[in-house]
Amino acid sequence: MKIYTKQEIERAVELPHLMAEIENGLIHSSQGTVLTAPVSFLHFEKPKGDVHIKSAAVRGDEYYVVKIASGFYDNPKHGLASSNGMMVLFSQKTGELMAVLLDEGRLTDLRTGLAGAITVKHLAQHPITKIGIIGTGTQAREQLFHLQSVTACRDVIVWGRDIAKARAFALDPYLQAFTIQPVQTIETLTQHCNVIITATSSSKPLLFGHQLQPGTHITAVGADDLGKQELDESVFERADLIVVDSLGQSLSYGDLSHAKNIKLETVIELGKFLDKPQHRPKEWITVADLTGIAIEDLQIAKAIYLKLQS
Amino acid sequence: MKIYTKQEIERAVELPHLMAEIENGLIHSSQGTVLTAPVSFLHFEKPKGDVHIKSAAVRGDEYYVVKIASGFYDNPKHGLASSNGMMVLFSQKTGELMAVLLDEGRLTDLRTGLAGAITVKHLAQHPITKIGIIGTGTQAREQLFHLQSVTACRDVIVWGRDIAKARAFALDPYLQAFTIQPVQTIETLTQHCNVIITATSSSKPLLFGHQLQPGTHITAVGADDLGKQELDESVFERADLIVVDSLGQSLSYGDLSHAKNIKLETVIELGKFLDKPQHRPKEWITVADLTGIAIEDLQIAKAIYLKLQS
Repeated sequence: MKIYTKQEIERAVELPHLMAEIENGLIHSSQGTVLTAPVSFLHFEKPKGDVHIKSAAVRGDEYYVVKIASGFYDNPKHGLASSNGMMVLFSQKTGELMAVLLDEGRLTDLRTGLAGAITVKHLAQHPITKIGIIGTGTQAREQLFHLQSVTACRDVIVWGRDIAKARAFALDPYLQAFTIQPVQTIETLTQHCNVIITATSSSKPLLFGHQLQPGTHITAVGADDLGKQELDESVFERADLIVVDSLGQSLSYGDLSHAKNIKLETVIELGKFLDKPQHRPKEWITVADLTGIAIEDLQIAKAIYLKLQS
Repeated sequence: MKIYTKQEIERAVELPHLMAEIENGLIHSSQGTVLTAPVSFLHFEKPKGDVHIKSAAVRGDEYYVVKIASGFYDNPKHGLASSNGMMVLFSQKTGELMAVLLDEGRLTDLRTGLAGAITVKHLAQHPITKIGIIGTGTQAREQLFHLQSVTACRDVIVWGRDIAKARAFALDPYLQAFTIQPVQTIETLTQHCNVIITATSSSKPLLFGHQLQPGTHITAVGADDLGKQELDESVFERADLIVVDSLGQSLSYGDLSHAKNIKLETVIELGKFLDKPQHRPKEWITVADLTGIAIEDLQIAKAIYLKLQS
């Protein structure tokens, strides 16, 4: 049994490999070989914090994972990161503990960023002309960072509730590969961008169907829990293709859970889409609603563990 | 952040204190101050293994716990314990990791044993004349061991599917305080014992209403997952008082889930009973259906952690 610190884990990160492993995991998931339990949530009020516990295994494989990830939104006021948590790998043959990954939430942030990039890689109309980022926090940053590997576009517009935070985002050294313009209104962003990522903890819709230009792709990663929403129902009504990471989770608490008039036959799981990509006319509006699924945690935990063992 | 091994944890065990803390936790739970998520299950087939993931917090307290416990039933063939797992304590104020308890399933076995003893302490007719144990595995052993602190009775009958295992149980040095007689039929046991504990992984009822003598108390701890059953519906029909650790869990997969004709008004949660004990005429048959609840995990993890810190 091994215990690894965040620093050791960071050194084992190989982004292209991790992205490939997450894609493989999503395809496994679509093929029905993944065992998973419903997500467990704990919600704290004073101070406000959300805990998500996810677990998964690929049938017949060596491992199962349990992932604990939390967001405590007042932490930055006290100089702490809002994200925290850990991932644990056990043997699915004996239940023995294989590895504790003390990642402090880093691997959850990372796999969420990679999952976003995977949707943009496979669903957006390339070449991408301008990227729109809605949100200025850790996950907005992560989403944009990982787009570097799936598009040559470096032209970005960012919108946040707080323009000061949007300005700080534009100057973030982690994102120095991009030219980032902060804007005051979401309409400025939707008029110019053909890829839009929403990565906020909003509880009210930020993006509406009438704002979208033909040929736009939207990836929404913020609504990962009850009470959160970034996309208005009208976004789904305007969409020609809707992709979700987990139909069950998206219908329970993803953005799609707010879209009561959408016919489920028009929605496809990301793993199924990756397994059999569909042709998309260039004027189509495509939407990916991501809630974050346990197979992503399993794949990243396994890949990091195997790298650390090698 | 601290990481503790099973050996360190074992040295911090103070049984009377742990029992008191679990009683306190059960009472908190009945008062509605406990936050918990539905249990997550993963079930493996080759080889057969069950994983239970439980999480809880007392509102306003410092901690939240995530507990992972597994049973892999072929492990003993390979010289491994069937139980495994760990408990993790986090801050409920910031999400920071406080302690990893690498207990390898020991604390789950222990808190389940203590919860059984708590039901016998508060529900059985004392003095207890003879104890009946149905089952010969790790948890049967644990259940009997902890009865030492709640009764002076040391006279025990044990029944198991395999009489050889019942004979080995009778000679177990861990249970040397008791005089244990292995028997071939459950009827021999039910005729002589006024406390009966069932602690098996049975999928079919082992104990039936017509077998019970007036004044008997039954505690059933085996049915902690779908597909398990130790008590026939007729046991509940004969019972004058039914106590469960969690109404939701017992109705979902406990023994009570098989008792379709039982009126819920006659069922009381253990924490409520501990908070306001009811008078029980001495001829009453009482039943406790325990599925194992996350507040027990929180209480034992916290108590061990605080002891290790002191």
